[in-house]
Amino acid sequence: MEIEQSRLEQTLRRIAGLDELAMQNAERQIDRLTKPPGSLGRLEEIARQIAGITGVLNPDLSRKAVVVMAGDHGVCEEGVSAFPAEVTPQMVLNFLNGGAAVNVLARHVGADVVCVDIGVNSDIGHPDLLVRKVGRGTGNIAVGPAMTREEAVQAIGIGIETVESLVDRGYRLFATGEMGIGNTTPSSALLTALTGADIESAVGRGTGIGDETLRRKRDVIGRALRVNRPDADDPLDVLAKVGGYEIAGLVGVILGAAANRCPVVVDGFISSVAALVASRIAPVAKGFMLPSHLSHERGHRLLMEHLGLRPILQMDMRLGEGTGAVMTFPIVEASMKLMNEMATFESAGVSGKETE
Amino acid sequence: MEIEQSRLEQTLRRIAGLDELAMQNAERQIDRLTKPPGSLGRLEEIARQIAGITGVLNPDLSRKAVVVMAGDHGVCEEGVSAFPAEVTPQMVLNFLNGGAAVNVLARHVGADVVCVDIGVNSDIGHPDLLVRKVGRGTGNIAVGPAMTREEAVQAIGIGIETVESLVDRGYRLFATGEMGIGNTTPSSALLTALTGADIESAVGRGTGIGDETLRRKRDVIGRALRVNRPDADDPLDVLAKVGGYEIAGLVGVILGAAANRCPVVVDGFISSVAALVASRIAPVAKGFMLPSHLSHERGHRLLMEHLGLRPILQMDMRLGEGTGAVMTFPIVEASMKLMNEMATFESAGVSGKETE
Repeated sequence: MEIEQSRLEQTLRRIAGLDELAMQNAERQIDRLTKPPGSLGRLEEIARQIAGITGVLNPDLSRKAVVVMAGDHGVCEEGVSAFPAEVTPQMVLNFLNGGAAVNVLARHVGADVVCVDIGVNSDIGHPDLLVRKVGRGTGNIAVGPAMTREEAVQAIGIGIETVESLVDRGYRLFATGEMGIGNTTPSSALLTALTGADIESAVGRGTGIGDETLRRKRDVIGRALRVNRPDADDPLDVLAKVGGYEIAGLVGVILGAAANRCPVVVDGFISSVAALVASRIAPVAKGFMLPSHLSHERGHRLLMEHLGLRPILQMDMRLGEGTGAVMTFPIVEASMKLMNEMATFESAGVSGKETE
Repeated sequence: MEIEQSRLEQTLRRIAGLDELAMQNAERQIDRLTKPPGSLGRLEEIARQIAGITGVLNPDLSRKAVVVMAGDHGVCEEGVSAFPAEVTPQMVLNFLNGGAAVNVLARHVGADVVCVDIGVNSDIGHPDLLVRKVGRGTGNIAVGPAMTREEAVQAIGIGIETVESLVDRGYRLFATGEMGIGNTTPSSALLTALTGADIESAVGRGTGIGDETLRRKRDVIGRALRVNRPDADDPLDVLAKVGGYEIAGLVGVILGAAANRCPVVVDGFISSVAALVASRIAPVAKGFMLPSHLSHERGHRLLMEHLGLRPILQMDMRLGEGTGAVMTFPIVEASMKLMNEMATFESAGVSGKETE
């Protein structure tokens, strides 16, 4: 346990701000390109941010991975999901066999899917699965804590370790993904506990529950908050009491990416909750996050506002797995290519803007 | 001229509705995939639409092109743009030499840039340029018509012909792009004339004009509408009187794509005005249009509403050239791959949704 605690502390010490000089250099380069100033909008912003993250204008981001953390949730026994809990391991196998949406999208954009069992409540045998179980499903948050504080720290450490080992293998661009039947329930509980948002606006239909289940889900989250009394000023306390193993793992992925000065694209609702927790633990980590899509899941817009992230894609997606984040990889790459491959006004002999 | 008129008429006769049976087949296939029903949002919509366009679930859309129509505008003499008119041919050369934003993005996504001089006011020598001049810059719309009705029909015919020849070479997915210093002015005039929108909400800052030029631009558009009195019920009349050669060319690109049952991704403000004209000439052509980004240019949101298109990308871009549309190609391809490559609940042994 002390090893895990010190891994987290060491990681937090390594997270520093963006490289202002590199961002100024990026800005100057962008303004030389053959286009009206500012006309590439968010693509210019992303290019500047990645310069600030990596310290250079043309980083090699070609090796990229979506880290899919999978875990089960004790709260499923309250009947909060449209799918049975057995779908978690079934979908993990689907990821490992390349048949899920995130696999198709990752192949499409040239990214790898890295799947981590951080707390699935069954044993999944597959050579490509990273088995790093912190537990076999969390506790039911409606009656007690999801996990101990030590387990939360351990799960974060697994996320950090996963990123570190990918960085060692040359990966430099990351996306967050998750699988865990029931995990919008702890996510909404975290959102409510950390921001003070009311339950109505923080809770949605997840994989597609009806009105009756939605009422039950809201009630369960209310009970989880009353029973566990998470301390909003202590993000680790909130994460342990009403979070989930895969959410904690993604907190680690984000912090690990920031410590290694790699951009990390944040997927939808659950991933964004992990990003919120990460930003509460280390506010400077926000600078390493890139937004992806605006999820159809209620509460995601609110989360984006809290994170200061503006979603790029408006696809009405609500699948998780990292699907929206992976779809954003080509946009991130486009921003870098524009900065590095476009002609300048000077090189192309194009006249500049007239002064009014 | 009669040839051109009959080409347009023949093309319009070939445009038919979407294939409902193929769309139902797509829907059934999508609902078998390992994901909660509807959770891929707009990606499911796009897959269905492309099935309806092409009639099959797995069309080969690998050959794709952005058609960049370039033309000059007499109205530039009123001082409505932030850039001098000489930038039109300079940027066309930049396209041909591969240095513009649209070139970088097209290379990134594996698309080709096809550049057509449909009305540039100078001679550009380059072997890859398709020279199809209808004129050398339009007339100044502040004092008279942009072009004759015959010229408008001719320009539409050139767009159709361009698409036809690309279809002959195996291209099946198109994007619209344009270059023409000053062309947001006729575009806003078209938007106002066709929809009755007030000038305030239809006119924006284009490539980045200041307040004084913006006032002048609005005034010029008001004069153009008073002088030319376009007939809102006659889209060809509006296009001829206050449009532009490249806008008319893009109307042809869109109608040609629809006639050949190819999806066409509509870029930003100017392209969307062309799409609006096309939809007024042939309402059924709307089914072949795919949205791309929401441009930062004022009036684009209004245009999207009129077209019934919901932008996918929110990038604050305002560059034109087809840049936003090209960025959307990977998303269109993703939707097809998801439908065709994902595992089904049955094949992957994943449990389905529980009934409430």
